[in-house]
Amino acid sequence: MTTRKLGRGVAVVGAGMSRFGTFKDHDTRDLFVEAFREMRASVDKGLDPGAIEALFIGNYSSELFEGQGHTAPIMADWTGLTPRPATRVEDACASSGVALRQGIMAIASGLHDVVLVGGIEKMSNLPITNVTDTLATAGDVLYEIPAGFTFPGFYAAMATAYMHRYGASPDALLRVGIKNHDNGKLNPKAQFQSRIADLMAARMAKALQKGLPPPGWADEMDFLRDDAANPMIAWPLRLFDCSPVTDGASALLLVSDDLARSFSDNPIYIIGTGQASDAALHDRPELTGLAAAQLAGRQAYDMAGVTPRDIKIAEVHDCFTIAEIIATEDLGFFAPGQGHEAAEEGLTARHGPRPVNTSGGLKSKGHPVGASGAAQVVEVWKQMRGEAGERQVARDVDLALTHNVGGTGQTCVVHIFERR
Amino acid sequence: MTTRKLGRGVAVVGAGMSRFGTFKDHDTRDLFVEAFREMRASVDKGLDPGAIEALFIGNYSSELFEGQGHTAPIMADWTGLTPRPATRVEDACASSGVALRQGIMAIASGLHDVVLVGGIEKMSNLPITNVTDTLATAGDVLYEIPAGFTFPGFYAAMATAYMHRYGASPDALLRVGIKNHDNGKLNPKAQFQSRIADLMAARMAKALQKGLPPPGWADEMDFLRDDAANPMIAWPLRLFDCSPVTDGASALLLVSDDLARSFSDNPIYIIGTGQASDAALHDRPELTGLAAAQLAGRQAYDMAGVTPRDIKIAEVHDCFTIAEIIATEDLGFFAPGQGHEAAEEGLTARHGPRPVNTSGGLKSKGHPVGASGAAQVVEVWKQMRGEAGERQVARDVDLALTHNVGGTGQTCVVHIFERR
Repeated sequence: MTTRKLGRGVAVVGAGMSRFGTFKDHDTRDLFVEAFREMRASVDKGLDPGAIEALFIGNYSSELFEGQGHTAPIMADWTGLTPRPATRVEDACASSGVALRQGIMAIASGLHDVVLVGGIEKMSNLPITNVTDTLATAGDVLYEIPAGFTFPGFYAAMATAYMHRYGASPDALLRVGIKNHDNGKLNPKAQFQSRIADLMAARMAKALQKGLPPPGWADEMDFLRDDAANPMIAWPLRLFDCSPVTDGASALLLVSDDLARSFSDNPIYIIGTGQASDAALHDRPELTGLAAAQLAGRQAYDMAGVTPRDIKIAEVHDCFTIAEIIATEDLGFFAPGQGHEAAEEGLTARHGPRPVNTSGGLKSKGHPVGASGAAQVVEVWKQMRGEAGERQVARDVDLALTHNVGGTGQTCVVHIFERR
Repeated sequence: MTTRKLGRGVAVVGAGMSRFGTFKDHDTRDLFVEAFREMRASVDKGLDPGAIEALFIGNYSSELFEGQGHTAPIMADWTGLTPRPATRVEDACASSGVALRQGIMAIASGLHDVVLVGGIEKMSNLPITNVTDTLATAGDVLYEIPAGFTFPGFYAAMATAYMHRYGASPDALLRVGIKNHDNGKLNPKAQFQSRIADLMAARMAKALQKGLPPPGWADEMDFLRDDAANPMIAWPLRLFDCSPVTDGASALLLVSDDLARSFSDNPIYIIGTGQASDAALHDRPELTGLAAAQLAGRQAYDMAGVTPRDIKIAEVHDCFTIAEIIATEDLGFFAPGQGHEAAEEGLTARHGPRPVNTSGGLKSKGHPVGASGAAQVVEVWKQMRGEAGERQVARDVDLALTHNVGGTGQTCVVHIFERR
């Protein structure tokens, strides 16, 4: 692998996102405008939208979710950016992570100086079974979907293989969910703002209110192990191991590094980018790691000239709890087979030695698939600038990483950010 | 408008396409492999696929046409390019023209030296009404589709406005179709390889065979004006004014200019790129030209340092015959309102002063929407290298242009090519 250098440096000087959740009265356009406005307000020295030269919009399937294709120029129109070139990028749930990479290349190429990167998805219009079918089109429709696979099934297969190989317990998965809900409670943009303990207490209160015998859960783990409270979706994945159906949008402003200080008092520089592809899950030699994530990570570390040890916080793609455990290994935070122990020991907690998904992650913040990659950068932006409010980590975050996965890892894209 | 320069130059060193047509026994994967193989064979000094560093795949809606999303990594897998990063680009019918632009930026950025740009679409799986509905998602589903618009309707509105403003006759439209079928007859990859005169003769022969009185068509124009032979689709557009439903794929190999001669004896350099967006058709001040095409054209000319007069051949986006006439004006080949006269006078014929769509264009070569933009470059590549066979133009083609439109012009992308 040759280490690559960009023709010129790129910085993030603005970042915003819509509230994540399910919004019956909003469509993609409204959500993107909401994200764009927050991004604009985050630019320290103000943003004249006329300075924006191009848009790169990550979106998985506005066609299937909303019946609308050709979404990128609509986003330009609704943010007042017509006639700027507007390009939609699609790599399933990695769409806006890959859109970010297009934005970086657009600036590094010399073609543009100021670029808007966005992500959008409006998933809640469809009934849940249709959402599942729509997401399944990110698998292989010739070889996987006819065999009955949907995404919980794919990740359950990975979880089963992982547990078998490394002797991991399903408890490790539940710990990831507990941690991410702990973080999401402190994120005002998150879809779920309840700790698992809060949910348990609410259930207990409800039972008492109805005059029923109080459920005998000893603690959060006991609650999550209860089939009634946390139903099995695809063994060993339960409801609280799965990210939800979410509507949302995200927006980032990128500029060439020489312009960064004219937009921002505290720009965040992108010092590493990596992307790789893989065959669909049925055609891989192993299921306990994502080769594309490992490769994208190595590319990003090499370009940045840093090691996994240097990274202060990471937002990783926890579409299912097992995915977070595997990600922490693929990225070199923990050795293969040790991610589950790290999760059980709390090493990835917000104030642990290796904070992962301080935003709440896809699990608690929500997962509007095409918007998630750029939304990860919103969290990194806030944490690096000390603007993450109640969930701000104690350490100084001078280096951070985002890890965004498409499908079952047919696409992985990793970015590394530096505050100078 | 600031003239932009790329960080480094980019050349096309290979180009190929699948046969265009309707292929019940082929899917997107087969078609892309077919295009990739022809591209590979076109590389003068041979291509080790291991040299390819990234893929940018234009595709409009594999989700709706084939039920398959996340297509880019599948294309990497089926061409043996896993784990190279694979990105799908979508801007409706401009998808692979925009993918080409991403490939250019990837190289100009310094991130990659050798890039595969592709286009794919498999449209014939669906019944025709569903194809029409799928294409309509490239309009505005809030404001246009509920009013009953489909794509023939959109372009009929443009044609009507154009005829009203400039006093054009529907005969000008028919002349575009005749010319493009003349060219497509000489393109072995084209979906339709019959001149309109051939079709007329075949109908006459069939009538005689059945013992019916021979239809009294005086010539091709008379044939095309006959409602029975050439039914009205959306006034003034008849069947032969509309591009067909097509399956097909296209593939281009791009390299940094310093590497061009190590791949090719006769590389084609990309010296201009332009892209712009526009509001949907219902929200534009005028319908007789595409503002985004005019702007993208100006950007490309400025970057290339050439004028419309310098361009020897052009492949333009004739999804409907009126679109070709408007394109020749938007690109500055003819003054506004004079494109229809130019078409009637044969100025855009293969051996005329301003050859347009020597490939047969979308009308006769076919229009697999996501593949069309890159397929335009295949024609330019062949003509510039003197490899266009029977349809080779007589003049020396040192400068050529491609013009690719998404939807009704919400996206337009223009590229200019030079043979040195």
